[in-house]
Formats: sequence, structure tokens, C-alpha cells
Amino acid sequence: MIEGVLVDLSGVLYVGEEEIPGAHEALARLRNSGLPVRFVTNTSRSTTKAILRKLKSFGFDIEEKELFTAPHVVTAFLRKHALRPFLLIHPGLVPEFADFPTDDPNAVVLGDAGENFSYHNLNRAFHLLLEKKALLISMGDNRYFMEREGLSLDIGPFMKALEYAADIKALVLGKPSADFFTAAVNDLGCLAGRTVMVGDDVLSDVGGALHAGLQGILVKTGKYREGDEKKLRNLDFHVVEDIGEAVTLILESLSRERPKHPKTEE
Amino acid sequence: MIEGVLVDLSGVLYVGEEEIPGAHEALARLRNSGLPVRFVTNTSRSTTKAILRKLKSFGFDIEEKELFTAPHVVTAFLRKHALRPFLLIHPGLVPEFADFPTDDPNAVVLGDAGENFSYHNLNRAFHLLLEKKALLISMGDNRYFMEREGLSLDIGPFMKALEYAADIKALVLGKPSADFFTAAVNDLGCLAGRTVMVGDDVLSDVGGALHAGLQGILVKTGKYREGDEKKLRNLDFHVVEDIGEAVTLILESLSRERPKHPKTEE
Repeated sequence: MIEGVLVDLSGVLYVGEEEIPGAHEALARLRNSGLPVRFVTNTSRSTTKAILRKLKSFGFDIEEKELFTAPHVVTAFLRKHALRPFLLIHPGLVPEFADFPTDDPNAVVLGDAGENFSYHNLNRAFHLLLEKKALLISMGDNRYFMEREGLSLDIGPFMKALEYAADIKALVLGKPSADFFTAAVNDLGCLAGRTVMVGDDVLSDVGGALHAGLQGILVKTGKYREGDEKKLRNLDFHVVEDIGEAVTLILESLSRERPKHPKTEE
Repeated sequence: MIEGVLVDLSGVLYVGEEEIPGAHEALARLRNSGLPVRFVTNTSRSTTKAILRKLKSFGFDIEEKELFTAPHVVTAFLRKHALRPFLLIHPGLVPEFADFPTDDPNAVVLGDAGENFSYHNLNRAFHLLLEKKALLISMGDNRYFMEREGLSLDIGPFMKALEYAADIKALVLGKPSADFFTAAVNDLGCLAGRTVMVGDDVLSDVGGALHAGLQGILVKTGKYREGDEKKLRNLDFHVVEDIGEAVTLILESLSRERPKHPKTEE
């Protein structure tokens, strides 16, 4: 039984500047079903505004309130705890953090910093973690992501590097954190067990969702690589070609349910 | 009973360009004891020749055959297995690898690359590991080391980053690898249990040595930080202020043995 859907963005709807074939049509079918949808992403190379602009340029009609991003969860956490971040993030995300004090930092915030993951910057973060006991906050723990040119190192490897160097554990505030999925599910107004997550990252999207009590569908687009599904042994989830097949699967499960729960609006 | 001594270099005899007070005198006393000594280091920012030059400039009279370096073990391994390395190393170490073919690499060799640990270079290494199934070889797994300006990230964090990204395990060919210690002990012609390692890195020097069956002395110079000794619970080793105290401890243990084993040369 499915009452709500979470959809990952990069690798599911698009890769780089290219729409994934059929994504537009699939999303339209999902919208027509009336199921509530949230778009959940660890993408941390651009602001919420820039993500919405990009989605609009693809013709995906997605509202700001439907978007759940790791950076958004991080800024809310920093505000709640009045933290002063040292930002190891992508230049494209900097405007999102314009309001925070950055002197005498007591938190290290890791985004997908790309070229900003320099030895110099990592060393600075390491000193804050080791000597100032700063909190390490990470917008996910993804290993890599798909760009037009191929796979690129994501935030996770650099999080692991700093964890090892300072002998600490990071607080992961994006996927696969159960808190992140729970917040999105609560926003949908659904039960976790009746919500399905559609993503291309077997561990962060599907594994994280299952761990938080959701259902999961792995798509074979984006960063998916042959055999990825074997990384989650003994867990129950679906593997499909792409977002189109994922939506078909979701809608089929609805039609199987409908005879039992006829609705007047049909 | 001690019959041979292994001594780490950086953090034990010097830090950056500064000799550790008393190191010169301590080494002279050790030499006078007649105990065989090897100098074991994961330092991978310079060639063997440059290390010997540096030691000479401090007035330490150390011969090439007494020096055991991680880069030396790595080049021997590459030769033995006819590997073609992608070198993620410090510019200062490049001459040591001049003879190796580097086209179509089937091994990623990690040294303490410093500023060469760029996003671009790490991404290149990651692609070779993931897509070409290249072997990851690391000259140690040290977390950080002491420079004049303070602690700096060592090779270990970047090894962990690549291990996590490609979901593999690195082959560590420097300290704390048991093979590395065993090779040095064999070269001394001693038994492991009668050889003592003196170092400032509680895990890589002392932990590695104990794991390989040697004895260990941790000095509180170099990268040592308050409480480091607690990282090796339930293991038996000595903690002293510096190389001077370490040598005193070693010589005391010799004099305690001597009444039982009088030698004509005394």
C-alpha cells in the first residue's frame, strides 16, 4: 500500500544538464495519481533557488515546499543550535549560508565542495575538529555521483577522511539519515511504511529509506552500476530500469489496492 | 632483553627543520652500546638521498643501508609485480619512481602528497580503482604528522577516502604493516621479541610494532598528544619524554641483563 512518494533528483530525473528519457512523462503520471510527492536530494552544489530554476528549465513543475534538501536541514540545525560554521562547501551553495557568523567556528559543515576539497581546506577543517573540538556536520555520506563526464567523488570520502584524521564521527544530516527521511515522510503526512523512496543510490537512497521504515525502489539510471542491488542483502526492495518503470510499479500497486478501497474521486 | 633497535625519524629525531633537543647525544649513546639500529620511516615527501642529506645536515651519521623507508618498500613491490603506477605522491618523491611506466596504470600509489591531494587527482585515482580495478597501495596509514606550523593531514585520511569511495581495501606497505616491521627486524638479524621500536605515533609506530611481536617505546615529542597512550589498551609498552629517555631505558635494560650474561668485551 503506497500513500506517498519520495523522489531523488540527480540521477533519477536528470544527469548533469540532460533529462533522463521519460522522466517528464513519468512525473506527469505520478502527479495525475494524486499521490503526494516530495523531492529529496543531498545535492549541495547549488542553492534551493538554483535547484528550482534548473527543474523549471527541464519543465518539471516542482514547488519550493515540495523540495527537501540536505543543505536546508543543515541550515535549520545550525540555527537551532546557534552554531558558527566553517564551510567546506561548493561556491554555488555559499549564498544559502550568508546569514551565519563564521568567526571562531565551532562546527565544520561539509557539502559536496568539489575543487574546494583542497589539502589546505581539509587541513583547516581537521585543525578545528581536533583542536577546537568542532562538530562535524555532513550533508550526506554518498560515495560518488554521476556527472556528464562520468562518476565524481561525492561528499562521503572526504567525510571519512576527516572522521579518520580526528578520530570522530560526523553527524549526517542528509540521506541516508533516518531523521532526514522521517522529516520528509512527516511533511507528506503519510506513514513511513506506506511511503516509497525512488533513487539511484542503493545505499543512501534505498538503504537509508528501508532503514527508516520506508519502501524502496532502485532505478538503474544515474550512478547505478551493475550489481549495486547486491549491496543490500536480505532486504526487500524493487529494482527497475528508470523513473518511468518506477512510476508504473507504484501506479500498479495502487490499482491492485483500489478494488478494496474505492474512492469517489476516481 | 633487547638486541636491536628501530627508531622513527620525524617527531623522534627532528620536527621540520629543528632537531629535537638531546636527539644527537641520545643517538651517540645508542651507537656506543653496540646495539644494531635501523631507522624506519613512512616519510614520503622526499627521496632516500634527500632524507640522508637532511640527517647529515643535523649531524646524524646514518648510512643508507640503515634506512628503511615506506617508499623503498613500495618501489620494490612495484618492481616485483611489474605494476604501472598512477602516482599520487609529493613532488619531492617523484625521482624515486622515475623508472616506472605510467601509461595505462594498474596501481594507485599513495604517498603523503600534500597539496597534490587535489579533488582532480583524487578523482583520477578513484576512476582507476573503480573502473580499472587498479590496486591501491599506500605508504602507511598515518592520520597526521607534526610540521613546524602544527599538525598536518598525513596519508591515512586520503587512503580512507579512496577506500570508501571505491569500496576496497588498500595494501599498506609502510608502518604499521607487520611485513614492514618484520623486514626491518630481519635486516637487523634479531628476533622480533628482542627488538624495540621507538616512535611518536602510538598507532603506526608502537601499535604496529607490538602487533608484529616487537617491543615498543612511545616518545612524547613530535605528533604525540596528551592521552595518546590510552589508544592502545591492554598492551604493554613504555612511554617516555623523548629519545633521550628512550635510549636511557634501553641501556638500563642492557645493564640489568649483563650480570646474568657477562661478556668479555665489557
